[in-house]
Amino acid sequence: MNNQSIGLVERKFFTLVEPIALESGECLENVILAYETYGELNQAKSNAILICHALSGDAHVAGFHLGADKGGWWEIMVGPGKAIDTDRYFVICSNILGSCMGSTGPSSINPKTGKAYGLAFPVVTIADMVKAQKALIDHLGIRKLMSVIGGSIGGMQTLEWSISFPSMVFSAIPLATTQRHSALAIAFNEVARQAIMADPHWQHGDYYDGQKPDLGLAVARMIGHITYLSDTAMRNKFGRRLQDKNDFSFNFDADFQVESYLRHQGTKFVNRFDANSFLYITKAADYFDLTSKRTADQQSVFSRAEARYLVVSFTSDWLYPTRKSRAMVKAMKKHNVNVSFCEIEAEWGHDAFLLPNPRLADMLSGFLDRMAKEYQI
Amino acid sequence: MNNQSIGLVERKFFTLVEPIALESGECLENVILAYETYGELNQAKSNAILICHALSGDAHVAGFHLGADKGGWWEIMVGPGKAIDTDRYFVICSNILGSCMGSTGPSSINPKTGKAYGLAFPVVTIADMVKAQKALIDHLGIRKLMSVIGGSIGGMQTLEWSISFPSMVFSAIPLATTQRHSALAIAFNEVARQAIMADPHWQHGDYYDGQKPDLGLAVARMIGHITYLSDTAMRNKFGRRLQDKNDFSFNFDADFQVESYLRHQGTKFVNRFDANSFLYITKAADYFDLTSKRTADQQSVFSRAEARYLVVSFTSDWLYPTRKSRAMVKAMKKHNVNVSFCEIEAEWGHDAFLLPNPRLADMLSGFLDRMAKEYQI
Repeated sequence: MNNQSIGLVERKFFTLVEPIALESGECLENVILAYETYGELNQAKSNAILICHALSGDAHVAGFHLGADKGGWWEIMVGPGKAIDTDRYFVICSNILGSCMGSTGPSSINPKTGKAYGLAFPVVTIADMVKAQKALIDHLGIRKLMSVIGGSIGGMQTLEWSISFPSMVFSAIPLATTQRHSALAIAFNEVARQAIMADPHWQHGDYYDGQKPDLGLAVARMIGHITYLSDTAMRNKFGRRLQDKNDFSFNFDADFQVESYLRHQGTKFVNRFDANSFLYITKAADYFDLTSKRTADQQSVFSRAEARYLVVSFTSDWLYPTRKSRAMVKAMKKHNVNVSFCEIEAEWGHDAFLLPNPRLADMLSGFLDRMAKEYQI
Repeated sequence: MNNQSIGLVERKFFTLVEPIALESGECLENVILAYETYGELNQAKSNAILICHALSGDAHVAGFHLGADKGGWWEIMVGPGKAIDTDRYFVICSNILGSCMGSTGPSSINPKTGKAYGLAFPVVTIADMVKAQKALIDHLGIRKLMSVIGGSIGGMQTLEWSISFPSMVFSAIPLATTQRHSALAIAFNEVARQAIMADPHWQHGDYYDGQKPDLGLAVARMIGHITYLSDTAMRNKFGRRLQDKNDFSFNFDADFQVESYLRHQGTKFVNRFDANSFLYITKAADYFDLTSKRTADQQSVFSRAEARYLVVSFTSDWLYPTRKSRAMVKAMKKHNVNVSFCEIEAEWGHDAFLLPNPRLADMLSGFLDRMAKEYQI
């Protein structure tokens, strides 16, 4: 154990041979997934862990790309000797279908027209994203994942994996997530989408040859950031502290630090993310409902689960609050699912799973260690 | 007591003789306030109640304008035999400075240019709004208000009244309000403002001769509406119920009822409200801090208060939560302020004070009755 970074890593691409039959009824051909892997797959191909990323994430979980001064988005958690130990496990992450970080999405070229899809891209669901990932896992020759792990929308994928392909998931760790969006969560996403669609540069999604809907996307991102932080986190981080001055500006500049922070987050985001992908992925999250279509009994969906679960929530997450995770765990237990639940004290709101947290790290490392023993890797 | 509507009422206008010296240091001339009154002022001029309205409200609290099929915004609470009984009290409400409902604001004509002010209108504060109202109360010959009542931003005005002009306020009823905005409340307002300012039709506030920033204002209003409802209210009102259909649209139409509701609220709002007024009033709310500038001791501001207070919060109000009202009441008590506090069980979130609520009605009516006796009217 050296507890260092993986070092240099590379993004790879996988082209699906078969078209994906989507939940909408449409069929999507020529799907490409960007992905990265870390560590070595053992001979039995039993030490694979799939990490599923959230809304604006990508396949680059850990290590450094050539020339980059910043590591992957979960560098703190994934690496040699870290909680998700790449000396022991073979870690995979793929950019989700519908995103804009190398996998096929609305900004990709539509082979039928030779132009970017825009809104011609079909609406995809969390189950569709998982279906695409499953093709990648098959391609890598892995028959069963030792674990699937993900936070937020990544947690939805984790849950979906365990129900869509129960025999392929030995264990599952959904973090800071929900089995279905509340009206409040849908409301936030909808207003964010409206902000994008209100931008005249959006042009019904057909903006790839001209100006992008940057202002709308920035507002959408700001709305998101409000939901990622908690009231407490905002109070501790910003309070009513003013920006660079001792008094109010008495104009519409950013007076308060929280205003500058949000403006900065909005502006930064438009340089790396596609507005249409934001629409598609938030829609997938809103549509997600682990139980609704599968059965008349809302909860018996868990009776098909084979995975050992570790469900983690965070005290200050008001987007996906603990009480909902607890309700899900209760439903799981009712169907004799092997599930551990932990609520972690953290004041950083929904984003807590992305931030350094020794308790979360210990929890993941301990659970994975136990799974490795049970799975006899 | 007949418990009916006041019937036909009329909006009046009052022009301030003196310019207002604003908190920003600027001076505002030719200020006009739109206002309405209900009931009769008694000979001693001691039965006057001032109602302060919230962000998007106006002077039209109760009764019906000629030809209108809808009553005032607090018709349920104000009228003959109602909680705020116009058979006993002389009720006044004026549209706030900076608004667009008849009082001077950014959409008014700037006498210096002959054109609408736009951003040339000075940034006003809650204290400035109260200063303008005070001129109106002076004009009406009232030396002391039996009560000042208001919810949300109207509650801020109520608190400000009791501190700016303590000898003029016999009692004060701040409802669903706060003595200062949290970082979270500022964050919501800022994102709403950004949505307006991102609309190309906004034109730095100079849009009165052309197209208005309707799309931006609609998004801003939607953000507001999320904060006015509670998680519970949204769940009860909408849940994940779909709009007019049994399945998802698989496009970016409004699938969920909560989405249609928000879109509807946004669209409806742009027909009656000015985008610049939205900027100015939310900024005033963000700036509001009852205690900060007045004294080094954050709370001793209350030592100058003479009013008897009734502070009311609502269980599901997450914009101005009970714990903050409670902290304010504690500070008041520390300075021997005569204060009663009540948290009302209501699942409708911040907006609860505007909705029918027998407990609130009883509370107001009882408190006012006691005040009337103590004030010997």
